[in-house]
Amino acid sequence: MFDLTLIGIGTGNPDHLTLQAIKAINAADLILIPRKGEGKADLAELRLAICRDVLTNPATRIVEFDLPVRDESIADYKARVEDWHDRIAGVWRGAIGGALRVALLVWGDPALYDSTLRIAARLVPAKRVHVVPGVTSIHALTAAHGIALNEIGAPFIVMTGRRLREEGFPLGVDTAVVMLDGECSFQNIDPAGVSIWWGGYVGMAEEIIVEGKLAEVGARIVKLRAEARAAHGWIMDIYLLRRG
Amino acid sequence: MFDLTLIGIGTGNPDHLTLQAIKAINAADLILIPRKGEGKADLAELRLAICRDVLTNPATRIVEFDLPVRDESIADYKARVEDWHDRIAGVWRGAIGGALRVALLVWGDPALYDSTLRIAARLVPAKRVHVVPGVTSIHALTAAHGIALNEIGAPFIVMTGRRLREEGFPLGVDTAVVMLDGECSFQNIDPAGVSIWWGGYVGMAEEIIVEGKLAEVGARIVKLRAEARAAHGWIMDIYLLRRG
Repeated sequence: MFDLTLIGIGTGNPDHLTLQAIKAINAADLILIPRKGEGKADLAELRLAICRDVLTNPATRIVEFDLPVRDESIADYKARVEDWHDRIAGVWRGAIGGALRVALLVWGDPALYDSTLRIAARLVPAKRVHVVPGVTSIHALTAAHGIALNEIGAPFIVMTGRRLREEGFPLGVDTAVVMLDGECSFQNIDPAGVSIWWGGYVGMAEEIIVEGKLAEVGARIVKLRAEARAAHGWIMDIYLLRRG
Repeated sequence: MFDLTLIGIGTGNPDHLTLQAIKAINAADLILIPRKGEGKADLAELRLAICRDVLTNPATRIVEFDLPVRDESIADYKARVEDWHDRIAGVWRGAIGGALRVALLVWGDPALYDSTLRIAARLVPAKRVHVVPGVTSIHALTAAHGIALNEIGAPFIVMTGRRLREEGFPLGVDTAVVMLDGECSFQNIDPAGVSIWWGGYVGMAEEIIVEGKLAEVGARIVKLRAEARAAHGWIMDIYLLRRG
């Protein structure tokens, strides 16, 4: 029986690490790092670089593992993801061996659109899973633009690009943060009266940001995103939409 | 003309500080710290303790200032807040003198239900305001409970207690995070099918958490919150509601 600590490490800027994250990295017997499968070589390397930078405990071992790929022969989306998480949990179990304090480094924060907690639940009882909160891409985005997330006393929603495409700008809120959007889904909503604050690689050296009225800057973001993705081989982006 | 850096410092756990925050603290000529007016002596002291812990630049000065109180004779809420922000900006200006690189330490993250950016806008052009993102109470809450913020691919809303009282659990989302709630506003919604993950002082040594079906644990949270508030003289709490 082992303890598992999921450590939020921020959005790719090594300086997003908290002191708590650094202590948790050094408290681990074993740090599990995915070797491939993310399709983002810079990011895989970055986890190792973070460990090299802050690891001072000579007893901590780093073990890389190959992330399984999804079985596309499973037609049902949910079943496909469940199967994939089961197999990742199996790979972790094999890599962990007899370690007692195991840590995983999670981009952003482990609670925000991330599967690590769900995979961990397959291996360890909840009370042996510990979470170290991290800086998220939402706050890296607002920091880059120097804007507030909410208007005074007002709510905001956080949603996926898919949801924005399927359901449009939600009713009842004037601020929406959109994540996990590979398709610039802001193109699918009526741009009248909507402003956008967009960012790619937020918090990283490669950071690009664009802001303006959606009707005026939307097409430029689509072009810029495609060019950046081609240049780097990958892109992570996020944006905030505000009405009125 | 000076540069102003708003530094997110997390939720009261000194280990929530990021390496970027520590660098920003040490890059400042002047750090402005409110002396009173927050009504939370532990928190005022904590900012000073953080500076003492991480400040290594002998040229950085710490200047405390008295936070003005709101002028309750101004009947209109918005006008009252605007006037208050104007006067805070005036106090900052006086305290800043000729400093060139000024920093303020902000609880959580400067983008999330915080006025510092709006006050800063009264003094400094946007391009001279820099933001260092921080760990928020939202992620300190989910970390304390070891839960995900969102269900797979699903949206979530972040709102104030006032909004929950006035409008109920919003339609179209099954997860709501409620902040700035001095009145346990979850008592005003139909608890059927709703679970709550509540936390006081999240991330701090005093942290208390409760989770369960709202119908079963709601009353216990109200009692626990009142007792904790009486014992400490203040409380900061936050909760996540999930339907279904």
